[in-house]
Amino acid sequence: MIKTQTLKGFRDFLPVEAKKRQFVVNILKQVFESYGFEPLETPALEYEEILLGKYGDEGDKLMYRFEDNGKRKVALRYDQTVPLARVVAQYVQELPMPFKRYQIQNVWRSDNTQKGRFREFLQCDIDSVGISSPLSDAEIIACALDSMEKLKFYDTQIWINDREILDRYGLSKEEIIILDKLEKIGDRMVIDAWRKNGRNNAEKLFKEIKNSKPSEKLSQIFATLSSMGYKENQDFAFVPHLARGLNYYTSTIFELKLVNTPYQLSFGGGGRYDNLIGLFTNKQIPAVGFSFGFDRIMEAMGDMDLFPIDLTTTNVLVTIFSKDLENKSLELAQMLREKNINTELYLDSNAKMEKQLKYADKKQIPYVVIIGPDEAKNNTVTVKNLKNRTQKTLPADQLLDLFKQ
Amino acid sequence: MIKTQTLKGFRDFLPVEAKKRQFVVNILKQVFESYGFEPLETPALEYEEILLGKYGDEGDKLMYRFEDNGKRKVALRYDQTVPLARVVAQYVQELPMPFKRYQIQNVWRSDNTQKGRFREFLQCDIDSVGISSPLSDAEIIACALDSMEKLKFYDTQIWINDREILDRYGLSKEEIIILDKLEKIGDRMVIDAWRKNGRNNAEKLFKEIKNSKPSEKLSQIFATLSSMGYKENQDFAFVPHLARGLNYYTSTIFELKLVNTPYQLSFGGGGRYDNLIGLFTNKQIPAVGFSFGFDRIMEAMGDMDLFPIDLTTTNVLVTIFSKDLENKSLELAQMLREKNINTELYLDSNAKMEKQLKYADKKQIPYVVIIGPDEAKNNTVTVKNLKNRTQKTLPADQLLDLFKQ
Repeated sequence: MIKTQTLKGFRDFLPVEAKKRQFVVNILKQVFESYGFEPLETPALEYEEILLGKYGDEGDKLMYRFEDNGKRKVALRYDQTVPLARVVAQYVQELPMPFKRYQIQNVWRSDNTQKGRFREFLQCDIDSVGISSPLSDAEIIACALDSMEKLKFYDTQIWINDREILDRYGLSKEEIIILDKLEKIGDRMVIDAWRKNGRNNAEKLFKEIKNSKPSEKLSQIFATLSSMGYKENQDFAFVPHLARGLNYYTSTIFELKLVNTPYQLSFGGGGRYDNLIGLFTNKQIPAVGFSFGFDRIMEAMGDMDLFPIDLTTTNVLVTIFSKDLENKSLELAQMLREKNINTELYLDSNAKMEKQLKYADKKQIPYVVIIGPDEAKNNTVTVKNLKNRTQKTLPADQLLDLFKQ
Repeated sequence: MIKTQTLKGFRDFLPVEAKKRQFVVNILKQVFESYGFEPLETPALEYEEILLGKYGDEGDKLMYRFEDNGKRKVALRYDQTVPLARVVAQYVQELPMPFKRYQIQNVWRSDNTQKGRFREFLQCDIDSVGISSPLSDAEIIACALDSMEKLKFYDTQIWINDREILDRYGLSKEEIIILDKLEKIGDRMVIDAWRKNGRNNAEKLFKEIKNSKPSEKLSQIFATLSSMGYKENQDFAFVPHLARGLNYYTSTIFELKLVNTPYQLSFGGGGRYDNLIGLFTNKQIPAVGFSFGFDRIMEAMGDMDLFPIDLTTTNVLVTIFSKDLENKSLELAQMLREKNINTELYLDSNAKMEKQLKYADKKQIPYVVIIGPDEAKNNTVTVKNLKNRTQKTLPADQLLDLFKQ
């Protein structure tokens, strides 16, 4: 017998969990579309040269790479930004510019697994391509904040910085990666690590960065966000030590935080990457985007009880009283479906009624309909409400009214 | 510069196409849920031993297999039935039985590419597990027929057969694979191929099969379908030469056809596989399911003009007249979004109005709003209807009424 197991870092989502995921994805889609973002899908596999070298050494190491049956060197999607850059370069003639797309697909990273970190996980991205105005940065931030609000997270704050500020202080790639860990390791350890890395004036530099002022560009973005009704130091904040690990950011960078909660972790992040698309075409095409950490959102929503109590998609279970009354149940089920009532028929005409009721309970189906000999004779149905444990018998043609309430 | 290319058999779906795909997926989900099927997701990667040997030699050959960074032998999802079998075996204690799930995910097959055949493609599956009653076969067929009707395919027919009939005639695996090609190669070539394969009475056997009668089980399924309102030889038909290529079917098999159209191809298929789950657990758990060929459906819907003319998700583009009037547009856009109007703001306050209008046209956004100096002074907005090329200026607070129509 074959051992049933899933790979470490990979997950099955059974219906209860899958419905919660759909709930969140649907809300995100709605918000993305309310800002005019449109869907894009890219392949799970790309030529490896498309992805290699875009995410830093760590990225190359964690990427799933292999030779396909035709000896092509391929890699599984590692994020959705590099594939977007490829798409923009490849279809630049036919895409409307600015090109605003959302993308909600899985990515794969062969990372060490730990609580909340997986090897296959969903990313939910919005990006505006072909536009460098601060309006586009502000809109991405606004859309991220709105998404969180629509999910009922009310203590969300976007941290904002400009890589150009860090560049002005002459920070190296290594120093940026160290600074990026500040929230986890604290000021002291950043300074020490910088010093160990060969920076003499580490402490002074750190203080200067912490006290730096928003760039001209950031000031414009903040002004736009204020016009849109968002409040500085509440909805968004200038955080001069924000670094973001990824290689490709060129200017503004953002990180989404839940404040006033135990969740100090990042719920997503993004920024401007004006040079990435230029790797794939001889045109420089600016871009800015944001990516939600879907698993973090799911986990926090669970802990904070933000899912609706009832995500059942089925409205009613039509039971089968006995083999000879099966057709009555069949007909009723079809009639209900025609009226857009999601109806499950119990599929075994030999099962005891008790078993059928237990099944409805387990699946959290709110109503159960029974057509026994009396009901069949009188053209009635008996309806059980499994939530308040009541039942009534009513004429079959009044059943629909029950679901209209 | 890196060459921008997608792998052969892999596709990007730009927004116009991606929206069409979402349109179809959403209808299928609705129908699946109307029958009480619930969503399941499984990983893209499985241990290869889970998948190997389940689809015949051809399947093993076409599977994407590789060693991951931890030297595990893994394979990309090849269909959704074997992962379902694994899931059922793995979680049998917690799943409600019968377990009715739908699954809409990509699968990967390293097949020869040709028109309509891809290496990454979406499958849309429904399966009922843990139940062997003919009711469950009938329900799967009914749900497949309803799905097609909801997509506005009105000439759909499900072909039905029972592998047990073929087994009764002693057909070997090879002979079944040959018979499966009948629609493509014709009666004569099936008979010849059987003969070449060592069958002496090929012609007689072929005639006997063609004239065989429905099994007891099929008769029950047909009776149930009739009770549900489906008509024999119109909505469904007994086709004794229907074979289906896959290894794991044990009894009923189905294939979905569009009749009375140039599309004689299969739009999906399925059947009963009562032994597959038993490979993963020491319990025999029966199951029956159906899988839609999503790409065939998409192609036929395009050819038959079944997509709505307008799949635009954006209701209105708010333009920016000039830098100093930018805030007026920003505020209006936010107000519209709060009222659930999908609103795109043009992101460049220096762009000419003509360019902004062209953008709306290209993205098929139905309305464009302009706030120029006069409008700002009088607290009005000018609205252009890009479909009928009309425009009017109205008080800003009456704008919402326009979208309620």
